[in-house]
Amino acid sequence: MIRALTFDTYGTVVDWRTSVLDELRALADRKSLTLDCVAFLDEWKAAYRPGMDRVNRGESRWTTVDAMYRTRLEELLAKYGVTLATDEIDALTRVWWRLRPWPDALAGLRRLKQRYILSPLSNASFIGMVELARSAGLPWDCVITAENARCYNPRPEVYQTAIALLGLAPAEIMMVAAHNYDLAAARAEGMMTAFVPRALEYGLGQTTDLAPTQAWDVVAADFGELAVRLGC
Amino acid sequence: MIRALTFDTYGTVVDWRTSVLDELRALADRKSLTLDCVAFLDEWKAAYRPGMDRVNRGESRWTTVDAMYRTRLEELLAKYGVTLATDEIDALTRVWWRLRPWPDALAGLRRLKQRYILSPLSNASFIGMVELARSAGLPWDCVITAENARCYNPRPEVYQTAIALLGLAPAEIMMVAAHNYDLAAARAEGMMTAFVPRALEYGLGQTTDLAPTQAWDVVAADFGELAVRLGC
Repeated sequence: MIRALTFDTYGTVVDWRTSVLDELRALADRKSLTLDCVAFLDEWKAAYRPGMDRVNRGESRWTTVDAMYRTRLEELLAKYGVTLATDEIDALTRVWWRLRPWPDALAGLRRLKQRYILSPLSNASFIGMVELARSAGLPWDCVITAENARCYNPRPEVYQTAIALLGLAPAEIMMVAAHNYDLAAARAEGMMTAFVPRALEYGLGQTTDLAPTQAWDVVAADFGELAVRLGC
Repeated sequence: MIRALTFDTYGTVVDWRTSVLDELRALADRKSLTLDCVAFLDEWKAAYRPGMDRVNRGESRWTTVDAMYRTRLEELLAKYGVTLATDEIDALTRVWWRLRPWPDALAGLRRLKQRYILSPLSNASFIGMVELARSAGLPWDCVITAENARCYNPRPEVYQTAIALLGLAPAEIMMVAAHNYDLAAARAEGMMTAFVPRALEYGLGQTTDLAPTQAWDVVAADFGELAVRLGC
């Protein structure tokens, strides 16, 4: 009955935290900077949800997360007293296009693709998700992001856009995410739901999304278990 | 300077004519029907452009080509006196999701993908293009179709939607098509253009699109030559 799976990507498919930290540390080494990379990353990532919420509340026109990260990065470089050339700032912003998949992700996706249509359904920019897929080898059948809806999750239009583009009944599509709020919004639109917790997404001290907050249709430890549970 | 290639698909990437004819002939054999399959296909395909033009002129609300083909198929089955069950009509309509690539297409796309982002930019439905890619093994990085713009080529919104989603300058994207009118519309939006003639798209008697009607940026005999011309 399920024909397509849509995936949250940052945190669910890829490990953004250690990927970005590695690049920040390499930059600090290369530039001989004394930089608290963890604090820098936390402040950088903190731009994400408020920026999207401003778009969702209509307080800001459509803005990609790439543009939000770029603006915030410039502010943080000034705050931390780091001077970079424009092309270095561009390259560092694009770290969000070069994130590493979780160890189980690629093999799990390849198995799931044998039987289901696979698409991201991410807050990423469309080109950001395309570039991430090329960089990480994510075997999507298509790319659908918030940019297709021009608003961000958990707004219903995001899920409705995916449902409409895929031309399927909502119950023929399963949302896969490491975040309960995302699954709750997908379920409200009639989609099936799979929770794959990523307890290290925010590092060792993570306190959120360690367990399901509703009876999701599937709860799986990783994408390998998800594939088994979905008959692959 | 070119970073992405967008492809017309029906006729440019896949050989719809012999693919559909084979299925019609197999159906006629299976049902022991006396059916002029060429005439049937010509009348079926003839629904395509007028249906899209009605959407583009605002005379009909957004309708996928799948729905147009489905409606036309029912009319033709009645006209030709062929009785099929609903699931057989559904399956026959989906022949447009199971078309064969031209012999050079897959190898050429795989070479081009090493260097460029590849997307269809087709009048297909979004799900139709996803299913075609899965069936034929087309190695797209993403899928963009008229459904993303909710109108059909050669309306400028189709090309503008692709340019916006890819987040690139128009001149960083090359439209690849076997149809001059499509390239003319892409060029009008500032895109680069590659003409790959498909002299047998409409069979042996084809009289259209045998030669370029403008000085396109690239003219190539097939996707292998296109890859060479684009440095792959």
